[in-house]
Amino acid sequence: MKESFAGTPEPPYYAVIFSSLRGEGGEGYADMARRMLELAQRQEGYLGAESARVELGITVSYWKDRESIRRWKEQAEHREAQRLGKERWYTAFRIRIARVEEERIFEREVGDGN
Amino acid sequence: MKESFAGTPEPPYYAVIFSSLRGEGGEGYADMARRMLELAQRQEGYLGAESARVELGITVSYWKDRESIRRWKEQAEHREAQRLGKERWYTAFRIRIARVEEERIFEREVGDGN
Repeated sequence: MKESFAGTPEPPYYAVIFSSLRGEGGEGYADMARRMLELAQRQEGYLGAESARVELGITVSYWKDRESIRRWKEQAEHREAQRLGKERWYTAFRIRIARVEEERIFEREVGDGN
Repeated sequence: MKESFAGTPEPPYYAVIFSSLRGEGGEGYADMARRMLELAQRQEGYLGAESARVELGITVSYWKDRESIRRWKEQAEHREAQRLGKERWYTAFRIRIARVEEERIFEREVGDGN
């Protein structure tokens, strides 16, 4: 995933906060993660995503509405990835579905030092 | 921050999704981040937090309601940290305030392989 902010619109929209702990068996994980991102990008209502991992991984994906999230959850190839994730890659995860109500943005101005 | 999931209650509650890009001048950052976490933990309405960073950092903190978030934003020492963050540590950030409506949990069962 490109290391940058998701270009989300004015709220309200939705966030899926996916936090996870990985197990040992990592084969195929990176490919699957990349593939799921490609698929999500083509999914109706997808607005963007932000991702980071140390030991705990967090991916926040942004969606137009809950119906878009529901359809993505049911997408066939994504369902298979969910199954493999539980079987192979994750020892535990949390998925939180949240309605974004407000957004504040900070960008350092050019020539602002540092 | 301990590498584990936040022990959040049944929804609804609130999430503050803080995604950030760091600049070069990192002195004092780790101490301040640790101190802010300690302070937040003592703040009314604080429910927990999850954090990860590669280049992009994501910290999601969880709160009882928007009033708790507002009070935390106004807390004196936290305000000073916000000021230093903009001046010194972050080149850019996004803060999204979101109402968590649903949570799904997966925990691999003991003896479930891998």
